[in-house]
Amino acid sequence: MKKVGVAILGLGVVGGGTYRILTEHREFYQTTQSLDINVECVLEQNEERLKELGVPEELVAHNIAEVACNPDVNIVVECIGGVSVARDYVLDVLYGGKTVVTSNKELIAKYYHELERTAKRHSAGLYFEASCVGGVPIIRTLLDGVQSNKIVSMMGIINGTTNFILTKMTEEGTSYAEALQEAQKLGYAEADPDADVEGFDAAYKLSVLSSLAFHTKIPYTKVLREGITGITPEDISHGKALGYRLKLLAISKQSEEGIEVRVHPAFVKKDHPLASVSGSYNAVFLTGDSLGDLMLYGKGAGDLPTGSAVVSDILYAASRTEPRYSTFKNNANPEKEIKFVSDFASSYYMRLSVNDRTGVLSKIAAIFGKNNISILELLQTPDAEGATLVLVTHETHEAAIKNAVAKLNASDIAKVEAVLRVVS
Amino acid sequence: MKKVGVAILGLGVVGGGTYRILTEHREFYQTTQSLDINVECVLEQNEERLKELGVPEELVAHNIAEVACNPDVNIVVECIGGVSVARDYVLDVLYGGKTVVTSNKELIAKYYHELERTAKRHSAGLYFEASCVGGVPIIRTLLDGVQSNKIVSMMGIINGTTNFILTKMTEEGTSYAEALQEAQKLGYAEADPDADVEGFDAAYKLSVLSSLAFHTKIPYTKVLREGITGITPEDISHGKALGYRLKLLAISKQSEEGIEVRVHPAFVKKDHPLASVSGSYNAVFLTGDSLGDLMLYGKGAGDLPTGSAVVSDILYAASRTEPRYSTFKNNANPEKEIKFVSDFASSYYMRLSVNDRTGVLSKIAAIFGKNNISILELLQTPDAEGATLVLVTHETHEAAIKNAVAKLNASDIAKVEAVLRVVS
Repeated sequence: MKKVGVAILGLGVVGGGTYRILTEHREFYQTTQSLDINVECVLEQNEERLKELGVPEELVAHNIAEVACNPDVNIVVECIGGVSVARDYVLDVLYGGKTVVTSNKELIAKYYHELERTAKRHSAGLYFEASCVGGVPIIRTLLDGVQSNKIVSMMGIINGTTNFILTKMTEEGTSYAEALQEAQKLGYAEADPDADVEGFDAAYKLSVLSSLAFHTKIPYTKVLREGITGITPEDISHGKALGYRLKLLAISKQSEEGIEVRVHPAFVKKDHPLASVSGSYNAVFLTGDSLGDLMLYGKGAGDLPTGSAVVSDILYAASRTEPRYSTFKNNANPEKEIKFVSDFASSYYMRLSVNDRTGVLSKIAAIFGKNNISILELLQTPDAEGATLVLVTHETHEAAIKNAVAKLNASDIAKVEAVLRVVS
Repeated sequence: MKKVGVAILGLGVVGGGTYRILTEHREFYQTTQSLDINVECVLEQNEERLKELGVPEELVAHNIAEVACNPDVNIVVECIGGVSVARDYVLDVLYGGKTVVTSNKELIAKYYHELERTAKRHSAGLYFEASCVGGVPIIRTLLDGVQSNKIVSMMGIINGTTNFILTKMTEEGTSYAEALQEAQKLGYAEADPDADVEGFDAAYKLSVLSSLAFHTKIPYTKVLREGITGITPEDISHGKALGYRLKLLAISKQSEEGIEVRVHPAFVKKDHPLASVSGSYNAVFLTGDSLGDLMLYGKGAGDLPTGSAVVSDILYAASRTEPRYSTFKNNANPEKEIKFVSDFASSYYMRLSVNDRTGVLSKIAAIFGKNNISILELLQTPDAEGATLVLVTHETHEAAIKNAVAKLNASDIAKVEAVLRVVS
């Protein structure tokens, strides 16, 4: 039976989950995969954590050199997170020809180019299923399951924290601040929640997944990114009344015009498969030219779900005689080589406060008309100072909406209180 | 660039889709996979079909020997269907050391044992993603995406024809006969619909998928199989009122008691991810010990979706230096080696006609009580001859329900009109 030695760098949530799965399933993998996967060493200084996981003292390495030079280690799992130490350690290990499995989305989004070049030069593998959407094998699917397709578009709920917050706001009508507090209490959100609620986490993942889907490097800096901090229960509730659910969506599309990549809150119809992805669940909805629609749905985070992705990568790497590299080109200068679409097409939801005077609606309609925007649904309700107008447009373009909003706000008839994109 | 020659046996729906994808995407695979996949020959006698697909005359082989002996053919795609000719041809090809990709679920369910043995002996690959759930890469996921998990259970909507019929009955209240006729008119059901509506097709697929999930041969003959021909709009509508949707489910579970495999109609709660899988869509809902829940959702049939699975197998096979075999044991005698659970646990829906007399309900309750069955929900409505009683039980066992039904039918107080399982 093939023996494979594994080292784990960092025994936090994911590293700890990986350690537990590997030690508890060793016999299972011998029987079902004909692989003897053994944890040879770990790099972790937190003694309490080592005790909690029951790691034998002799497995604890003291520095990265001990790991990189250990001839019994074939595969190194990086679960340190961040990009400074993690990048150095991963490069050290790759130089020695050892295969790396990482759960670090920021590392892959920022340094994939360099890491894969190093890996190839030293015939080492580089796998990162766990970096995107936890237990959901979306990367394996893109590389080995739907690689026969030209991917047309991808739409995902790929951040559990924001999905938990938006689900709570939708189901219980709570404010953003209350929902965030609850998420923090339950450990779904960090004390500093910006990476999640401002969409950085989703943008890193979208960069990685779109690069794989479109076979070309999509820099995370090119992702249009808007978070959920400005979302009000009022807009969620108006959307609900119109048959929509609000989600933080990561969207990428490829067409003759170019590539568009964006992370922002958006309404989806309540019978769309993504609408019922609630709480800490994640999902990716792909469209391929041959297979049509495909959705993968599962746990986007957590020690065991993400550990499951790490271990599947280990087993995959161990079962191959040569590494499997991803299929995206290492474009030297993607920002110049690729055309990124910023004036993309979408439908829009808009909430306006209007003066309740004769002729106001026709003036508003005129501004929309001048921008070639036609209205699909409209709901007017009186309020203390006039009226609230909620509307959804037919498909139009980003620039047209921005123009119409500026014109409306410059007029004395209406104030645009909220604009949200709608997946049509 | 690696050159790979492909032969396609049978240019029906899936074979034709495969031919189209391969010819239209040749350059795309050169760029993205560094593979030059060329259709070297096809085996198909229908000249009209050959013309329709635009197959050049020189590609048409006249017999299987021409294919098996063609040194330029590395991978043979079997899309003939059935098990007599297809089995012979696949064996012929494997003997010559050529890799086989097949979309034939019946062939794999019945002869996997023999085919894999032959493939291994001749160092040939054997891939069958397209045999189960069309464009959904469920087999790749089981083998390479979630192989780190002990699969606890699997629950799928894996037959498009029956899902179309049940969706139509649910949404429009039509009878089974009308819905079947509509499915036949639209080409979703065969003139002889038994393979689909009696659950054979789903049972073959469940046998293949469970074998992969549980790493042990699950003979299709061990699948409890009940079709949808007896389903009435009345029960669908009662279930709907109680918050359930009726689906033909393929279920398999593994526990300390053994393995259970079954295909039958069942109610699922309307907010379960499987409930909204409508029409010709398919989905598989997996639970793994580490990853938790995972659902894959997509097109279960059709020329391009299933062709997409065939071509993904071709690309996967071509990218490897050695074949990837499945991880289920070739048990010599699975029926004796495995414990199959027949008295499984489930909740149940029941519809009874009852005499509208004092004390009837307490007598019925007594029969349930004697069988340790407790009732979760109950709905009584008067009708011409007495009353209709609709109920859903808490989780109980198959044997207890059968016993209670026999007792009720033997009494003079009630007649059991329908019993359906409920996923709890």
